[in-house]
Amino acid sequence: MSEIKNILFIMFDQLRFDYLGCAGHPHLKTPHIDRFAEKAVRFTRTYVQSPICGSSRMSFYTGRYVHSHGAQRNNFPLKVGEHTLGDHLRANGMDAWLVGKTHMEADAKGLERLGIAPDSVIGARLAECGFDVFVRDDGLWAEGPDGFYDSRRSPYNEYLKSKGYPTENPWNKFANAGLDEDGEIASGWLMKNSPLPANIREEDSETPWLTSECIRFLEERKDDERPWLCHLSYIKPHWPYIVPAPYNDMYGPEHVIPAVKDEAEKQKPHPVYGAYMDTLIAKSFSREDVRHDVIPAYMGLIAQCDDQMGRLFAYLEESGRMDDTMIVLTSDHGDYLGDHWLGEKNFFHECTVKIPMIVYDPRAAANPTRGTTSDALVEAIDLAATFVEATGAEVPDHILEGRSLAPLLHGETPEDWRDAVICEFDYSTTPMATKLGVELRDARLFMVFDGRYKLIHAEGGFRPMLFDLETDPDEFTDLGKSAEHAEIIDRLYVKLGQWARRLSQRTALSDEEVRAMLGKSNRRGILLGLYDGSEVPEEWLSEIKGPAPASYLDQS
Amino acid sequence: MSEIKNILFIMFDQLRFDYLGCAGHPHLKTPHIDRFAEKAVRFTRTYVQSPICGSSRMSFYTGRYVHSHGAQRNNFPLKVGEHTLGDHLRANGMDAWLVGKTHMEADAKGLERLGIAPDSVIGARLAECGFDVFVRDDGLWAEGPDGFYDSRRSPYNEYLKSKGYPTENPWNKFANAGLDEDGEIASGWLMKNSPLPANIREEDSETPWLTSECIRFLEERKDDERPWLCHLSYIKPHWPYIVPAPYNDMYGPEHVIPAVKDEAEKQKPHPVYGAYMDTLIAKSFSREDVRHDVIPAYMGLIAQCDDQMGRLFAYLEESGRMDDTMIVLTSDHGDYLGDHWLGEKNFFHECTVKIPMIVYDPRAAANPTRGTTSDALVEAIDLAATFVEATGAEVPDHILEGRSLAPLLHGETPEDWRDAVICEFDYSTTPMATKLGVELRDARLFMVFDGRYKLIHAEGGFRPMLFDLETDPDEFTDLGKSAEHAEIIDRLYVKLGQWARRLSQRTALSDEEVRAMLGKSNRRGILLGLYDGSEVPEEWLSEIKGPAPASYLDQS
Repeated sequence: MSEIKNILFIMFDQLRFDYLGCAGHPHLKTPHIDRFAEKAVRFTRTYVQSPICGSSRMSFYTGRYVHSHGAQRNNFPLKVGEHTLGDHLRANGMDAWLVGKTHMEADAKGLERLGIAPDSVIGARLAECGFDVFVRDDGLWAEGPDGFYDSRRSPYNEYLKSKGYPTENPWNKFANAGLDEDGEIASGWLMKNSPLPANIREEDSETPWLTSECIRFLEERKDDERPWLCHLSYIKPHWPYIVPAPYNDMYGPEHVIPAVKDEAEKQKPHPVYGAYMDTLIAKSFSREDVRHDVIPAYMGLIAQCDDQMGRLFAYLEESGRMDDTMIVLTSDHGDYLGDHWLGEKNFFHECTVKIPMIVYDPRAAANPTRGTTSDALVEAIDLAATFVEATGAEVPDHILEGRSLAPLLHGETPEDWRDAVICEFDYSTTPMATKLGVELRDARLFMVFDGRYKLIHAEGGFRPMLFDLETDPDEFTDLGKSAEHAEIIDRLYVKLGQWARRLSQRTALSDEEVRAMLGKSNRRGILLGLYDGSEVPEEWLSEIKGPAPASYLDQS
Repeated sequence: MSEIKNILFIMFDQLRFDYLGCAGHPHLKTPHIDRFAEKAVRFTRTYVQSPICGSSRMSFYTGRYVHSHGAQRNNFPLKVGEHTLGDHLRANGMDAWLVGKTHMEADAKGLERLGIAPDSVIGARLAECGFDVFVRDDGLWAEGPDGFYDSRRSPYNEYLKSKGYPTENPWNKFANAGLDEDGEIASGWLMKNSPLPANIREEDSETPWLTSECIRFLEERKDDERPWLCHLSYIKPHWPYIVPAPYNDMYGPEHVIPAVKDEAEKQKPHPVYGAYMDTLIAKSFSREDVRHDVIPAYMGLIAQCDDQMGRLFAYLEESGRMDDTMIVLTSDHGDYLGDHWLGEKNFFHECTVKIPMIVYDPRAAANPTRGTTSDALVEAIDLAATFVEATGAEVPDHILEGRSLAPLLHGETPEDWRDAVICEFDYSTTPMATKLGVELRDARLFMVFDGRYKLIHAEGGFRPMLFDLETDPDEFTDLGKSAEHAEIIDRLYVKLGQWARRLSQRTALSDEEVRAMLGKSNRRGILLGLYDGSEVPEEWLSEIKGPAPASYLDQS
């Protein structure tokens, strides 16, 4: 155990916080991740900044709230000018590489406006959220009558084609589809097919492929002196919910934990929550047969992820990387899977906004905490600050809005650690906005959670929702209308207001630079409020006293 | 009267809303501005976004709140990436030129980070707040033992030197200084010298010089087909308070209106207001002798400004520019001049946050409103939107946070016109922050004013201030502790919260582009919540149904 040279930043997609052995899942086995957690700190109350891939990731990669960076939804560009993790790390001598998914949309108009060529080094990094790309694959090679969802070239599809999968989009037709009895495609997009094995060799499926890519990166860099951060960003266990054999058969309906839901939730729900419950995916996941088909596949996908972690950790140990590498394992958000009568993510119950967060710090200072858990309120944006701190640099906290986890990793909880977390969601491009009749810009939700009470605020004139997680850990009882809780609601609104007013855009000047400006103008001649000059040191007046220069009248 | 081809955007510096004849000043004569107002609409309730030059101007020039653009104080850079008025106008075929002051600090580190050369066309515009520079002079050529306040080259000093003023910094030693009986410099920085004439030919002083520069610009462009916005940005009547003859003698103590102040204001004031009253400039302006020395000079400076307006308007009429040019006359903030026991600006009483705003629209649609006033709640940021609208373009309201004044100019008040204005101030680099013991980032103040009630919120745990301008137009009675007004305070805090949560950073995507995204992913293969596909049109499933391609097993 020594200093941190490198950082391996592993992200899964849509992995729930409670779908890990070490997090207490009663059936799912994740021995490799569990063993990793024994060397690390597992943060049990870590919240994303938005329960949707793109926005959550832009917060991870900028270290800033969605309200600060403005990439409100998937495929909303991260605007040119935003500082990224890559900017901060490179400034401190560390490269930042991508292996996998970012869901980054480049700000093409912004690049053009600023005259930055997209294929220049700077332009390419701006277009890739600050990363240098070892391989980028967002794993969304969906295709329909209007063509591809993602118009990029898919490295994964290229890989599959090179392996002999005979079609233009093997992601869609092999990796994410099974085969029915009649030799027809049984797509993973249709959840009735989730129990089938994906029609692909297991080693060619997305998770092993990305693991291999990461190992290839590590091999290439193994003798390199220059420190790196490698963002290994998996595509799974995100939908389509289908997994190759043997993982498709590893779990069955008997391993599906009951949905966390209550009939009372459907009685006069908050209008926004009601609109969520009325979506197709919510209705599908409210069916037990669907859960029984899908959740075993989801668990199989996680089991496969865990096996790939085993493979990766073995490589890291053999190559000595465990000694000099900070390793983080997390997810970009959770998945409802039928809890609260919902599917997907995009709202604020624990199963979707709380994520796994396991941080391994090779430094000796972290020895006392290995294998422990921390219930400090952690936000996804804390990672960027943690990584900058790991390079030995000061955290530029006029830009990064999170806090380094280093003290927590070393067994100290700072007294001024945050007392609430914030999460946001923008549903402006969904049919719900139309259905609820809210203005485009009012289709926004905020969550503030202080560790006990969770307030959900919806713009557009709705009442708030409130949950008391101490008395109601399952979040069944919405106290948003409870007169008894009015004071608590007020208190959380005060917190939300304070947060919303925060200084988030003064990113061109550090606190230190601001402090250095204090009083400087006096000695540069800006002298306010003087009547006769006796009010200040004589020296300050050096340029405004004394004999006048010869009159201009003499010169003209 | 016809269409708008050009825009002349005239700004004075530190000109109070009530120091104009047309605004009712009992002694000060501003016949040229008054006559201009007869052709225009005078907005009587226009508020700046910050009562300090730099931040206020960055709001004028970006059309965005300080909380959005982050240039919190003078000399805080406007970060690269912020869109400026120049960007919007040029996109619609109009140039944007500067004649005078901007107080813009370029984001040098941002330019470097993005690889933008400061001397490229794009870089130079970014460094000049979006303007092409005809002449830039911020008029702050103060000098002290540590050198110049502004390290740029001063075109005005160059001009004076060319006119025979025999010194390196004639701004400091001639334009802003008189001469005492012993032939010593009698600097305008010392307010006891304010009654003296500045030691300069009147026609060489700052206001006539900038007027000449503007006329030179207009002459050069007179046969040019390409539309322009010209930002004629004066330095005066901003301090140092000294003016050449005959203006220094035009007004005397008998013309000084009584200070709007009350002994009660000093009894247990709000701590932040108390700290303001304890500054040197506040104490100086609390003296009647100081007011009697300074205010006549301030009035003389305004009289000179008015005469120069007469000269400019005559040129505009002769050259035909009144027919094709929108003309705005405004100021970047006011001046306390001893009101409320304060000097300078930087707080939120009407005399400092309310500005003159006179808008002349040559279009026939504006005929019915000529010579009228409007008491709609207007913000400084409305001008950018007004100018974009004047080019005939749609206002990019995902970037610009103000609203076009066009409807008001044409006699219609939109039903959804704003019901409150917002103003902000950051005092982090002042000794007050230290004195009050607030954290650097808590040294921020917000004002929300709904046309009757004005709430002032100070970060850092202070109680709010509240004024009722209907019953207390002089703002003497702070109701911040009044239990009776608790509901009003709550209501204004709700407004402030709503404002603070606003969508201000999604600037890379317009509302229209967002709307166009609705439902698009379905036809590109993203199909959520399907169990068997019967839930959606068959067509959507085109790429996930049908015979499977030949098995990969056959190929390998």
